[in-house]
Amino acid sequence: MTPASTPPLEALVTLLGLETLEENLFRGHSQDLGFPQLFGGQVLGQALSAATRTVPAERKVHSLHGYFLRPGDAHKPVVYQVDGVRDGGSFTTRRISAIQNGKTIFFCSASFHGQEEGFEHQQAMPVGDSPEQLIEQGAKIERYDGHPIEFLRMPSPSPEANEDKVSRSGLMPPPRQRLWFRLAGDLPEDDALHRYLLTYSSDFNLLATGLIGHDVYFGSPGLQMASLDHSLWFHRDVRVNDWILYEMDSPWAGDARSFSRGSLYNRHGELVASSAQEGLTRLRKHP
Amino acid sequence: MTPASTPPLEALVTLLGLETLEENLFRGHSQDLGFPQLFGGQVLGQALSAATRTVPAERKVHSLHGYFLRPGDAHKPVVYQVDGVRDGGSFTTRRISAIQNGKTIFFCSASFHGQEEGFEHQQAMPVGDSPEQLIEQGAKIERYDGHPIEFLRMPSPSPEANEDKVSRSGLMPPPRQRLWFRLAGDLPEDDALHRYLLTYSSDFNLLATGLIGHDVYFGSPGLQMASLDHSLWFHRDVRVNDWILYEMDSPWAGDARSFSRGSLYNRHGELVASSAQEGLTRLRKHP
Repeated sequence: MTPASTPPLEALVTLLGLETLEENLFRGHSQDLGFPQLFGGQVLGQALSAATRTVPAERKVHSLHGYFLRPGDAHKPVVYQVDGVRDGGSFTTRRISAIQNGKTIFFCSASFHGQEEGFEHQQAMPVGDSPEQLIEQGAKIERYDGHPIEFLRMPSPSPEANEDKVSRSGLMPPPRQRLWFRLAGDLPEDDALHRYLLTYSSDFNLLATGLIGHDVYFGSPGLQMASLDHSLWFHRDVRVNDWILYEMDSPWAGDARSFSRGSLYNRHGELVASSAQEGLTRLRKHP
Repeated sequence: MTPASTPPLEALVTLLGLETLEENLFRGHSQDLGFPQLFGGQVLGQALSAATRTVPAERKVHSLHGYFLRPGDAHKPVVYQVDGVRDGGSFTTRRISAIQNGKTIFFCSASFHGQEEGFEHQQAMPVGDSPEQLIEQGAKIERYDGHPIEFLRMPSPSPEANEDKVSRSGLMPPPRQRLWFRLAGDLPEDDALHRYLLTYSSDFNLLATGLIGHDVYFGSPGLQMASLDHSLWFHRDVRVNDWILYEMDSPWAGDARSFSRGSLYNRHGELVASSAQEGLTRLRKHP
Protein backbone atom coordinates (compact mmCIF):
# COMPACT_ATOMS: atom_id res chain seq x y z
CA MET A 1 0.00 0.00 0.00
CA THR A 2 1.45 3.36 -1.01
CA PRO A 3 1.71 5.51 2.12
CA ALA A 4 -0.41 8.66 2.33
CA SER A 5 1.31 11.88 3.21
CA THR A 6 -0.41 12.70 6.48
CA PRO A 7 -0.62 10.39 9.48
CA PRO A 8 -4.46 10.48 9.96
CA LEU A 9 -5.11 9.67 6.32
CA GLU A 10 -2.38 7.05 6.36
CA ALA A 11 -4.08 5.45 9.36
CA LEU A 12 -7.42 5.42 7.54
CA VAL A 13 -5.86 3.87 4.42
CA THR A 14 -4.27 1.19 6.62
CA LEU A 15 -7.64 0.61 8.32
CA LEU A 16 -9.21 -0.15 4.95
CA GLY A 17 -6.23 -2.25 3.85
CA LEU A 18 -7.14 -5.46 5.78
CA GLU A 19 -5.04 -8.46 6.62
CA THR A 20 -5.64 -11.67 4.62
CA LEU A 21 -6.27 -14.61 6.98
CA GLU A 22 -7.23 -17.16 4.35
CA GLU A 23 -8.74 -17.17 0.90
CA ASN A 24 -11.96 -15.10 1.20
CA LEU A 25 -11.26 -14.35 4.87
CA PHE A 26 -9.90 -11.00 6.03
CA ARG A 27 -9.39 -9.03 9.23
CA GLY A 28 -9.56 -5.29 9.78
CA HIS A 29 -8.63 -3.18 12.77
CA SER A 30 -11.15 -0.84 14.35
CA GLN A 31 -11.09 2.86 15.03
CA ASP A 32 -12.85 4.58 17.91
CA LEU A 33 -14.40 7.84 16.70
CA GLY A 34 -16.06 8.46 20.06
CA PHE A 35 -19.47 7.31 18.81
CA PRO A 36 -21.56 5.05 21.10
CA GLN A 37 -20.71 2.11 18.83
CA LEU A 38 -18.36 1.17 15.99
CA PHE A 39 -18.78 3.62 13.08
CA GLY A 40 -20.81 1.97 10.31
CA GLY A 41 -18.73 3.60 7.58
CA GLN A 42 -15.69 1.65 8.76
CA VAL A 43 -17.52 -1.67 8.41
CA LEU A 44 -18.94 -0.65 5.02
CA GLY A 45 -15.54 0.41 3.68
CA GLN A 46 -13.77 -2.67 5.02
CA ALA A 47 -16.48 -5.00 3.69
CA LEU A 48 -16.08 -3.46 0.24
CA SER A 49 -12.31 -3.75 0.56
CA ALA A 50 -12.65 -7.45 1.43
CA ALA A 51 -15.00 -8.15 -1.50
CA THR A 52 -12.87 -6.20 -3.99
CA ARG A 53 -9.83 -8.32 -3.12
CA THR A 54 -11.64 -11.36 -4.53
CA VAL A 55 -12.65 -9.73 -7.85
CA PRO A 56 -10.50 -9.12 -10.98
CA ALA A 57 -9.34 -5.48 -11.03
CA GLU A 58 -11.00 -4.68 -14.38
CA ARG A 59 -14.40 -5.14 -12.74
CA LYS A 60 -15.20 -2.22 -10.47
CA VAL A 61 -17.87 -2.09 -7.79
CA HIS A 62 -21.04 -0.38 -9.04
CA SER A 63 -23.36 -1.02 -6.10
CA LEU A 64 -23.54 -2.38 -2.58
CA HIS A 65 -26.41 -3.01 -0.17
CA GLY A 66 -25.82 -3.79 3.48
CA TYR A 67 -27.73 -4.39 6.71
CA PHE A 68 -26.40 -3.56 10.16
CA LEU A 69 -27.43 -6.38 12.51
CA ARG A 70 -25.73 -5.71 15.83
CA PRO A 71 -23.71 -2.85 17.34
CA GLY A 72 -19.99 -3.28 16.69
CA ASP A 73 -17.20 -2.88 19.24
CA ALA A 74 -14.80 -0.06 18.31
CA HIS A 75 -12.02 -1.67 20.37
CA LYS A 76 -11.95 -5.04 18.60
CA PRO A 77 -10.97 -6.10 15.09
CA VAL A 78 -13.61 -7.26 12.61
CA VAL A 79 -13.38 -10.42 10.48
CA TYR A 80 -14.84 -10.34 6.96
CA GLN A 81 -15.93 -13.51 5.23
CA VAL A 82 -16.53 -13.22 1.48
CA ASP A 83 -18.91 -15.55 -0.31
CA GLY A 84 -18.45 -15.76 -4.10
CA VAL A 85 -22.04 -15.74 -5.26
CA ARG A 86 -21.48 -15.43 -8.98
CA ASP A 87 -18.78 -14.73 -11.56
CA GLY A 88 -20.85 -14.06 -14.66
CA GLY A 89 -20.02 -12.96 -18.18
CA SER A 90 -20.48 -9.28 -17.34
CA PHE A 91 -21.05 -9.02 -13.59
CA THR A 92 -19.43 -10.40 -10.45
CA THR A 93 -21.48 -10.61 -7.23
CA ARG A 94 -20.22 -11.08 -3.69
CA ARG A 95 -21.76 -11.38 -0.23
CA ILE A 96 -19.76 -10.29 2.77
CA SER A 97 -20.35 -11.00 6.47
CA ALA A 98 -18.66 -8.89 9.15
CA ILE A 99 -18.05 -10.86 12.35
CA GLN A 100 -17.13 -9.87 15.91
CA ASN A 101 -17.25 -12.17 18.94
CA GLY A 102 -18.60 -15.00 16.82
CA LYS A 103 -21.63 -12.99 15.70
CA THR A 104 -22.46 -11.35 12.38
CA ILE A 105 -22.67 -7.62 13.08
CA PHE A 106 -23.26 -6.63 9.43
CA PHE A 107 -23.70 -8.22 6.05
CA CYS A 108 -23.74 -6.81 2.60
CA SER A 109 -23.88 -7.70 -1.07
CA ALA A 110 -21.88 -5.97 -3.77
CA SER A 111 -21.84 -6.15 -7.56
CA PHE A 112 -18.90 -5.48 -9.90
CA HIS A 113 -18.94 -4.64 -13.60
CA GLY A 114 -16.36 -3.96 -16.33
CA GLN A 115 -16.40 -0.85 -18.49
CA GLU A 116 -19.00 -0.71 -21.28
CA GLU A 117 -20.20 1.86 -23.77
CA GLY A 118 -23.74 3.17 -23.45
CA PHE A 119 -25.99 6.19 -23.42
CA GLU A 120 -25.37 8.67 -20.65
CA HIS A 121 -27.18 11.23 -18.53
CA GLN A 122 -27.02 12.62 -15.05
CA GLN A 123 -28.92 15.06 -12.90
CA ALA A 124 -27.23 18.47 -12.57
CA MET A 125 -25.28 19.41 -9.46
CA PRO A 126 -27.21 21.96 -7.39
CA VAL A 127 -25.97 25.52 -7.79
CA GLY A 128 -23.99 26.71 -4.79
CA ASP A 129 -20.73 28.09 -3.54
CA SER A 130 -17.44 26.28 -4.06
CA PRO A 131 -15.40 25.27 -1.00
CA GLU A 132 -13.06 28.23 -1.67
CA GLN A 133 -16.01 30.66 -1.81
CA LEU A 134 -17.47 29.27 1.42
CA ILE A 135 -14.12 29.64 3.18
CA GLU A 136 -13.77 33.18 1.84
CA GLN A 137 -17.23 33.93 3.31
CA GLY A 138 -16.05 32.74 6.71
CA ALA A 139 -17.27 29.11 6.74
CA LYS A 140 -15.24 26.94 9.09
CA ILE A 141 -13.88 23.51 8.18
CA GLU A 142 -15.16 20.90 10.68
CA ARG A 143 -12.95 17.98 11.70
CA TYR A 144 -12.96 15.14 14.20
CA ASP A 145 -9.77 15.30 16.27
CA GLY A 146 -7.00 13.37 14.57
CA HIS A 147 -9.23 12.33 11.67
CA PRO A 148 -8.55 13.18 8.02
CA ILE A 149 -12.15 13.92 6.98
CA GLU A 150 -13.06 17.59 6.58
CA PHE A 151 -16.58 19.00 6.22
CA LEU A 152 -17.72 22.38 4.93
CA ARG A 153 -21.45 22.90 5.52
CA MET A 154 -23.40 24.92 2.97
CA PRO A 155 -26.13 27.32 4.07
CA SER A 156 -29.62 25.80 3.91
CA PRO A 157 -30.82 25.64 0.32
CA SER A 158 -33.26 28.33 -0.75
CA PRO A 159 -36.94 27.37 -0.59
CA GLU A 160 -37.96 25.01 -3.35
CA ALA A 161 -40.33 26.02 -6.10
CA ASN A 162 -42.94 23.74 -4.55
CA GLU A 163 -42.72 25.26 -1.07
CA ASP A 164 -46.21 26.76 -1.40
CA LYS A 165 -47.65 23.42 -2.28
CA VAL A 166 -45.88 21.87 0.67
CA SER A 167 -47.28 24.25 3.23
CA ARG A 168 -50.75 24.15 1.67
CA SER A 169 -50.78 20.39 2.01
CA GLY A 170 -49.90 20.66 5.67
CA LEU A 171 -46.74 18.61 5.17
CA MET A 172 -43.33 20.02 6.02
CA PRO A 173 -40.69 20.27 3.30
CA PRO A 174 -38.34 17.30 3.46
CA PRO A 175 -35.30 17.82 5.68
CA ARG A 176 -32.28 18.52 3.47
CA GLN A 177 -28.65 19.45 3.80
CA ARG A 178 -25.66 19.99 1.58
CA LEU A 179 -22.01 19.86 2.51
CA TRP A 180 -18.61 19.46 0.92
CA PHE A 181 -16.23 16.86 2.34
CA ARG A 182 -12.74 15.63 1.54
CA LEU A 183 -10.04 13.44 3.02
CA ALA A 184 -7.15 15.83 3.54
CA GLY A 185 -3.80 14.56 2.26
CA ASP A 186 -2.22 12.73 -0.64
CA LEU A 187 -3.55 9.41 -1.86
CA PRO A 188 -2.32 7.01 -4.53
CA GLU A 189 -4.16 6.89 -7.88
CA ASP A 190 -5.89 3.65 -6.86
CA ASP A 191 -9.53 3.65 -8.05
CA ALA A 192 -10.53 0.84 -5.69
CA LEU A 193 -9.05 2.59 -2.63
CA HIS A 194 -10.93 5.80 -3.44
CA ARG A 195 -14.15 3.77 -3.65
CA TYR A 196 -13.53 2.27 -0.17
CA LEU A 197 -12.91 5.77 1.15
CA LEU A 198 -16.03 7.15 -0.54
CA THR A 199 -18.03 4.31 1.01
CA TYR A 200 -16.54 5.05 4.41
CA SER A 201 -17.33 8.77 4.06
CA SER A 202 -20.87 8.29 2.73
CA ASP A 203 -22.04 7.17 6.17
CA PHE A 204 -21.35 10.56 7.82
CA ASN A 205 -24.35 12.94 8.11
CA LEU A 206 -26.73 10.84 5.98
CA LEU A 207 -28.97 9.48 8.73
CA ALA A 208 -28.82 12.75 10.70
CA THR A 209 -30.47 14.49 7.73
CA GLY A 210 -33.74 13.00 8.98
CA LEU A 211 -33.42 14.87 12.31
CA ILE A 212 -33.51 18.32 10.70
CA GLY A 213 -36.58 20.24 11.85
CA HIS A 214 -37.32 17.90 14.77
CA ASP A 215 -35.46 19.76 17.51
CA VAL A 216 -33.11 16.84 18.10
CA TYR A 217 -29.54 16.33 16.96
CA PHE A 218 -26.87 13.64 16.91
CA GLY A 219 -26.06 13.24 20.61
CA SER A 220 -29.37 14.58 22.00
CA PRO A 221 -30.22 13.05 25.41
CA GLY A 222 -32.62 10.16 24.91
CA LEU A 223 -32.07 9.95 21.14
CA GLN A 224 -31.01 6.49 20.03
CA MET A 225 -29.57 6.45 16.51
CA ALA A 226 -28.29 3.48 14.53
CA SER A 227 -27.94 2.73 10.84
CA LEU A 228 -30.23 -0.09 9.72
CA ASP A 229 -29.20 -0.39 6.08
CA HIS A 230 -26.93 1.38 3.61
CA SER A 231 -27.01 1.35 -0.18
CA LEU A 232 -24.48 2.94 -2.48
CA TRP A 233 -24.37 3.10 -6.28
CA PHE A 234 -21.06 4.11 -7.89
CA HIS A 235 -21.36 6.02 -11.15
CA ARG A 236 -17.73 6.85 -12.03
CA ASP A 237 -14.18 6.94 -10.71
CA VAL A 238 -13.73 9.35 -7.84
CA ARG A 239 -10.91 11.11 -6.01
CA VAL A 240 -11.88 11.68 -2.39
CA ASN A 241 -8.91 13.87 -1.49
CA ASP A 242 -10.52 16.64 -3.52
CA TRP A 243 -13.83 18.12 -2.34
CA ILE A 244 -17.05 16.10 -2.88
CA LEU A 245 -20.48 17.76 -2.63
CA TYR A 246 -22.88 15.58 -0.64
CA GLU A 247 -26.52 16.57 -1.18
CA MET A 248 -28.93 14.76 1.15
CA ASP A 249 -32.64 14.72 1.82
CA SER A 250 -34.93 12.67 4.00
CA PRO A 251 -38.20 11.86 2.20
CA TRP A 252 -39.77 10.24 5.25
CA ALA A 253 -39.56 9.55 9.00
CA GLY A 254 -41.94 7.65 11.26
CA ASP A 255 -42.19 4.52 13.47
CA ALA A 256 -38.86 5.56 15.10
CA ARG A 257 -37.11 5.24 11.72
CA SER A 258 -35.81 7.80 9.20
CA PHE A 259 -35.08 7.31 5.51
CA SER A 260 -32.46 9.42 3.71
CA ARG A 261 -31.06 9.63 0.20
CA GLY A 262 -27.88 11.25 -1.05
CA SER A 263 -26.18 12.40 -4.26
CA LEU A 264 -22.39 12.81 -4.37
CA TYR A 265 -20.77 15.12 -6.93
CA ASN A 266 -17.14 15.98 -7.63
CA ARG A 267 -16.27 19.65 -7.96
CA HIS A 268 -16.65 19.43 -11.76
CA GLY A 269 -20.37 18.72 -11.27
CA GLU A 270 -20.14 15.02 -12.16
CA LEU A 271 -22.43 12.71 -10.16
CA VAL A 272 -19.97 10.16 -8.77
CA ALA A 273 -22.35 8.14 -6.57
CA SER A 274 -25.85 7.91 -5.07
CA SER A 275 -26.70 6.66 -1.60
CA ALA A 276 -29.73 5.65 0.48
CA GLN A 277 -30.03 4.73 4.12
CA GLU A 278 -32.66 3.97 6.70
CA GLY A 279 -31.85 4.18 10.37
CA LEU A 280 -33.32 3.92 13.80
CA THR A 281 -34.03 7.40 15.22
CA ARG A 282 -35.77 6.53 18.46
CA LEU A 283 -36.64 9.07 21.13
CA ARG A 284 -36.58 7.42 24.52
CA LYS A 285 -38.81 9.01 27.11
CA HIS A 286 -36.90 10.38 30.08
CA PRO A 287 -37.52 8.52 33.33
CA MET B 1 -56.54 -17.20 1.24
CA THR B 2 -59.61 -15.04 0.72
CA PRO B 3 -60.46 -15.15 -2.97
CA ALA B 4 -60.27 -11.91 -4.92
CA SER B 5 -63.30 -10.91 -6.95
CA THR B 6 -61.77 -10.92 -10.42
CA PRO B 7 -59.94 -13.85 -11.97
CA PRO B 8 -56.71 -11.98 -12.97
CA LEU B 9 -56.25 -10.50 -9.49
CA GLU B 10 -57.14 -13.84 -7.91
CA ALA B 11 -54.44 -15.45 -10.04
CA LEU B 12 -51.91 -12.86 -8.91
CA VAL B 13 -52.84 -13.34 -5.25
CA THR B 14 -52.43 -17.11 -5.69
CA LEU B 15 -49.07 -16.52 -7.40
CA LEU B 16 -47.83 -14.66 -4.31
CA GLY B 17 -49.36 -17.24 -1.96
CA LEU B 18 -46.63 -19.90 -2.26
CA GLU B 19 -46.66 -23.55 -1.30
CA THR B 20 -44.75 -24.57 1.85
CA LEU B 21 -42.31 -27.42 1.08
CA GLU B 22 -40.54 -27.49 4.43
CA GLU B 23 -39.77 -25.07 7.22
CA ASN B 24 -38.15 -22.05 5.52
CA LEU B 25 -38.60 -23.60 2.07
CA PHE B 26 -41.36 -22.48 -0.31
CA ARG B 27 -42.34 -22.85 -3.94
CA GLY B 28 -44.12 -20.37 -6.20
CA HIS B 29 -45.59 -20.76 -9.66
CA SER B 30 -44.49 -18.50 -12.49
CA GLN B 31 -46.39 -16.22 -14.79
CA ASP B 32 -45.41 -15.40 -18.37
CA LEU B 33 -46.04 -11.71 -19.04
CA GLY B 34 -44.51 -11.95 -22.52
CA PHE B 35 -41.24 -10.39 -21.40
CA PRO B 36 -37.95 -11.93 -22.64
CA GLN B 37 -37.43 -13.42 -19.16
CA LEU B 38 -39.31 -14.01 -15.90
CA PHE B 39 -40.67 -10.70 -14.55
CA GLY B 40 -38.49 -9.50 -11.67
CA GLY B 41 -41.50 -8.18 -9.74
CA GLN B 42 -42.83 -11.73 -9.41
CA VAL B 43 -39.59 -12.93 -7.83
CA LEU B 44 -39.43 -9.88 -5.55
CA GLY B 45 -43.02 -10.31 -4.39
CA GLN B 46 -42.68 -14.06 -3.86
CA ALA B 47 -39.37 -13.67 -2.01
CA LEU B 48 -41.02 -11.18 0.35
CA SER B 49 -43.97 -13.53 0.76
CA ALA B 50 -41.59 -16.38 1.67
CA ALA B 51 -39.68 -14.27 4.21
CA THR B 52 -42.85 -12.86 5.80
CA ARG B 53 -44.14 -16.38 6.46
CA THR B 54 -41.21 -16.92 8.85
CA VAL B 55 -41.71 -13.68 10.85
CA PRO B 56 -44.28 -12.93 13.61
CA ALA B 57 -47.20 -10.95 12.14
CA GLU B 58 -46.71 -7.94 14.42
CA ARG B 59 -43.39 -7.22 12.72
CA LYS B 60 -43.95 -5.80 9.24
CA VAL B 61 -41.39 -5.52 6.47
CA HIS B 62 -39.84 -2.03 6.31
CA SER B 63 -37.14 -2.64 3.71
CA LEU B 64 -35.77 -5.14 1.24
CA HIS B 65 -32.69 -5.19 -0.99
CA GLY B 66 -32.24 -7.75 -3.75
CA TYR B 67 -29.86 -8.65 -6.56
CA PHE B 68 -30.92 -10.38 -9.76
CA LEU B 69 -28.21 -12.89 -10.65
CA ARG B 70 -29.52 -14.89 -13.61
CA PRO B 71 -32.51 -14.62 -15.98
CA GLY B 72 -35.47 -16.61 -14.68
CA ASP B 73 -37.65 -19.01 -16.70
CA ALA B 74 -41.29 -17.85 -16.84
CA HIS B 75 -42.45 -21.44 -17.50
CA LYS B 76 -40.97 -23.03 -14.38
CA PRO B 77 -41.74 -22.66 -10.66
CA VAL B 78 -39.28 -20.93 -8.33
CA VAL B 79 -38.10 -22.31 -4.98
CA TYR B 80 -37.44 -19.85 -2.14
CA GLN B 81 -35.08 -20.69 0.69
CA VAL B 82 -35.27 -18.42 3.74
CA ASP B 83 -32.30 -17.98 6.05
CA GLY B 84 -33.10 -16.63 9.52
CA VAL B 85 -30.30 -14.13 10.02
CA ARG B 86 -31.47 -12.51 13.20
CA ASP B 87 -34.47 -12.25 15.52
CA GLY B 88 -33.53 -9.23 17.61
CA GLY B 89 -35.33 -7.25 20.28
CA SER B 90 -36.79 -4.78 17.78
CA PHE B 91 -35.90 -6.04 14.30
CA THR B 92 -36.07 -9.34 12.43
CA THR B 93 -33.78 -9.90 9.43
CA ARG B 94 -34.09 -12.54 6.75
CA ARG B 95 -32.14 -13.54 3.63
CA ILE B 96 -33.95 -15.23 0.78
CA SER B 97 -32.55 -17.13 -2.20
CA ALA B 98 -34.70 -17.79 -5.28
CA ILE B 99 -33.69 -20.99 -7.07
CA GLN B 100 -34.47 -22.44 -10.50
CA ASN B 101 -32.73 -25.42 -12.12
CA GLY B 102 -30.40 -25.71 -9.11
CA LYS B 103 -29.09 -22.18 -9.53
CA THR B 104 -29.74 -19.01 -7.51
CA ILE B 105 -31.44 -16.59 -9.88
CA PHE B 106 -32.01 -13.88 -7.24
CA PHE B 107 -31.28 -13.21 -3.61
CA CYS B 108 -32.49 -10.57 -1.25
CA SER B 109 -32.45 -9.43 2.35
CA ALA B 110 -35.41 -8.00 4.18
CA SER B 111 -35.91 -6.39 7.59
CA PHE B 112 -39.05 -6.39 9.74
CA HIS B 113 -40.00 -4.06 12.59
CA GLY B 114 -42.90 -3.66 15.02
CA GLN B 115 -44.82 -0.45 15.45
CA GLU B 116 -43.14 2.34 17.44
CA GLU B 117 -43.85 5.94 18.24
CA GLY B 118 -41.53 8.60 16.85
CA PHE B 119 -41.26 11.93 15.11
CA GLU B 120 -42.67 12.06 11.61
CA HIS B 121 -42.22 13.85 8.33
CA GLN B 122 -42.61 13.11 4.65
CA GLN B 123 -42.01 14.86 1.36
CA ALA B 124 -45.17 16.22 -0.27
CA MET B 125 -46.84 14.42 -3.15
CA PRO B 126 -46.28 16.29 -6.42
CA VAL B 127 -49.26 18.33 -7.55
CA GLY B 128 -51.13 16.74 -10.44
CA ASP B 129 -54.40 15.41 -11.71
CA SER B 130 -56.27 12.64 -9.94
CA PRO B 131 -57.00 9.41 -11.84
CA GLU B 132 -60.60 10.58 -12.32
CA GLN B 133 -59.46 13.93 -13.75
CA LEU B 134 -57.03 12.21 -16.12
CA ILE B 135 -59.76 9.87 -17.37
CA GLU B 136 -62.13 12.84 -17.79
CA GLN B 137 -59.42 14.51 -19.89
CA GLY B 138 -59.29 11.47 -22.14
CA ALA B 139 -56.35 9.53 -20.66
CA LYS B 140 -56.55 5.80 -21.42
CA ILE B 141 -56.01 3.09 -18.84
CA GLU B 142 -53.19 0.75 -19.99
CA ARG B 143 -53.34 -2.95 -19.20
CA TYR B 144 -51.46 -6.13 -20.05
CA ASP B 145 -53.91 -8.67 -21.50
CA GLY B 146 -55.46 -10.72 -18.70
CA HIS B 147 -53.46 -8.93 -16.00
CA PRO B 148 -55.00 -6.98 -13.10
CA ILE B 149 -52.53 -4.06 -13.06
CA GLU B 150 -53.78 -0.80 -14.56
CA PHE B 151 -51.64 2.23 -15.41
CA LEU B 152 -52.65 5.83 -16.02
CA ARG B 153 -49.74 7.90 -17.30
CA MET B 154 -49.57 11.54 -16.30
CA PRO B 155 -48.41 14.16 -18.80
CA SER B 156 -44.69 15.02 -18.47
CA PRO B 157 -44.13 17.22 -15.44
CA SER B 158 -43.70 20.90 -16.13
CA PRO B 159 -40.11 22.16 -16.33
CA GLU B 160 -38.45 22.30 -12.95
CA ALA B 161 -37.41 25.56 -11.36
CA ASN B 162 -33.79 24.61 -12.02
CA GLU B 163 -34.27 23.94 -15.74
CA ASP B 164 -32.21 27.01 -16.68
CA LYS B 165 -29.34 25.87 -14.56
CA VAL B 166 -29.58 22.44 -16.11
CA SER B 167 -29.35 23.67 -19.69
CA ARG B 168 -26.65 26.17 -18.81
CA SER B 169 -24.53 23.43 -17.34
CA GLY B 170 -24.83 21.44 -20.55
CA LEU B 171 -26.44 18.52 -18.70
CA MET B 172 -29.90 17.26 -19.59
CA PRO B 173 -32.67 17.30 -16.97
CA PRO B 174 -33.01 13.90 -15.35
CA PRO B 175 -35.47 11.58 -17.08
CA ARG B 176 -38.69 11.52 -15.03
CA GLN B 177 -42.16 10.07 -15.24
CA ARG B 178 -45.27 9.90 -13.12
CA LEU B 179 -48.10 7.44 -13.34
CA TRP B 180 -50.96 6.09 -11.29
CA PHE B 181 -51.36 2.34 -10.98
CA ARG B 182 -53.74 -0.01 -9.19
CA LEU B 183 -54.64 -3.69 -9.07
CA ALA B 184 -58.24 -3.77 -10.23
CA GLY B 185 -60.54 -5.85 -8.04
CA ASP B 186 -61.30 -6.63 -4.42
CA LEU B 187 -58.61 -7.72 -2.00
CA PRO B 188 -58.75 -8.83 1.63
CA GLU B 189 -57.62 -6.39 4.34
CA ASP B 190 -54.33 -8.22 4.72
CA ASP B 191 -51.46 -5.75 5.22
CA ALA B 192 -48.80 -8.31 4.33
CA LEU B 193 -50.52 -9.27 1.06
CA HIS B 194 -50.78 -5.62 0.02
CA ARG B 195 -47.04 -5.25 0.67
CA TYR B 196 -46.25 -8.26 -1.57
CA LEU B 197 -48.44 -6.72 -4.26
CA LEU B 198 -46.80 -3.31 -3.89
CA THR B 199 -43.40 -4.97 -4.20
CA TYR B 200 -44.56 -6.82 -7.31
CA SER B 201 -45.92 -3.62 -8.84
CA SER B 202 -42.89 -1.45 -7.98
CA ASP B 203 -40.82 -3.23 -10.63
CA PHE B 204 -42.96 -1.96 -13.55
CA ASN B 205 -41.68 1.18 -15.34
CA LEU B 206 -38.89 1.95 -12.85
CA LEU B 207 -35.89 0.89 -14.94
CA ALA B 208 -37.47 2.22 -18.17
CA THR B 209 -37.44 5.70 -16.62
CA GLY B 210 -33.74 5.80 -17.50
CA LEU B 211 -34.51 5.41 -21.23
CA ILE B 212 -36.49 8.66 -21.45
CA GLY B 213 -34.79 11.11 -23.78
CA HIS B 214 -32.49 8.50 -25.35
CA ASP B 215 -34.65 7.56 -28.34
CA VAL B 216 -34.97 3.95 -27.16
CA TYR B 217 -37.87 2.22 -25.44
CA PHE B 218 -38.67 -1.09 -23.75
CA GLY B 219 -38.60 -3.52 -26.70
CA SER B 220 -36.34 -1.44 -29.00
CA PRO B 221 -34.32 -3.65 -31.36
CA GLY B 222 -30.83 -4.20 -29.94
CA LEU B 223 -31.74 -2.90 -26.47
CA GLN B 224 -30.95 -5.40 -23.72
CA MET B 225 -32.65 -4.56 -20.42
CA ALA B 226 -32.44 -6.42 -17.13
CA SER B 227 -32.86 -5.42 -13.50
CA LEU B 228 -29.63 -5.69 -11.54
CA ASP B 229 -30.84 -4.76 -8.08
CA HIS B 230 -34.04 -3.55 -6.41
CA SER B 231 -34.51 -1.77 -3.11
CA LEU B 232 -37.78 -0.91 -1.46
CA TRP B 233 -38.52 0.90 1.80
CA PHE B 234 -42.04 0.62 3.23
CA HIS B 235 -43.28 3.65 5.15
CA ARG B 236 -46.87 2.71 6.05
CA ASP B 237 -49.70 0.28 5.36
CA VAL B 238 -50.94 0.42 1.81
CA ARG B 239 -53.97 -0.67 -0.22
CA VAL B 240 -52.94 -1.43 -3.79
CA ASN B 241 -56.44 -1.88 -5.17
CA ASP B 242 -56.86 1.87 -4.93
CA TRP B 243 -54.70 4.14 -7.11
CA ILE B 244 -51.03 4.67 -6.17
CA LEU B 245 -49.01 7.55 -7.66
CA TYR B 246 -45.55 6.35 -8.72
CA GLU B 247 -43.13 9.24 -9.24
CA MET B 248 -39.84 8.13 -10.77
CA ASP B 249 -36.62 9.78 -11.89
CA SER B 250 -33.29 8.52 -13.16
CA PRO B 251 -30.41 10.52 -11.68
CA TRP B 252 -27.77 8.78 -13.82
CA ALA B 253 -27.05 6.44 -16.73
CA GLY B 254 -23.72 5.30 -18.19
CA ASP B 255 -21.52 2.19 -18.68
CA ALA B 256 -24.63 0.41 -20.12
CA ARG B 257 -26.41 0.83 -16.77
CA SER B 258 -29.22 3.12 -15.56
CA PHE B 259 -30.11 4.11 -12.02
CA SER B 260 -33.68 5.05 -11.05
CA ARG B 261 -35.47 6.09 -7.87
CA GLY B 262 -39.16 6.12 -7.06
CA SER B 263 -41.64 7.52 -4.55
CA LEU B 264 -45.04 5.86 -4.11
CA TYR B 265 -47.99 7.82 -2.70
CA ASN B 266 -51.57 6.84 -1.97
CA ARG B 267 -54.30 9.13 -3.26
CA HIS B 268 -54.40 10.95 0.10
CA GLY B 269 -50.85 12.19 -0.52
CA GLU B 270 -49.21 9.85 2.00
CA LEU B 271 -45.79 8.49 1.01
CA VAL B 272 -46.30 4.74 1.33
CA ALA B 273 -42.92 3.55 0.00
CA SER B 274 -39.65 4.54 -1.71
CA SER B 275 -37.79 2.48 -4.29
CA ALA B 276 -34.43 2.41 -6.07
CA GLN B 277 -33.17 0.23 -8.87
CA GLU B 278 -30.17 -0.12 -11.14
CA GLY B 279 -30.44 -2.10 -14.35
CA LEU B 280 -28.57 -3.10 -17.43
CA THR B 281 -29.63 -0.90 -20.38
CA ARG B 282 -27.24 -2.10 -23.06
CA LEU B 283 -27.47 -1.10 -26.70
CA ARG B 284 -26.14 -3.89 -28.88
CA LYS B 285 -24.73 -2.77 -32.20
CA HIS B 286 -26.62 -4.23 -35.17
CA PRO B 287 -24.60 -6.69 -37.25
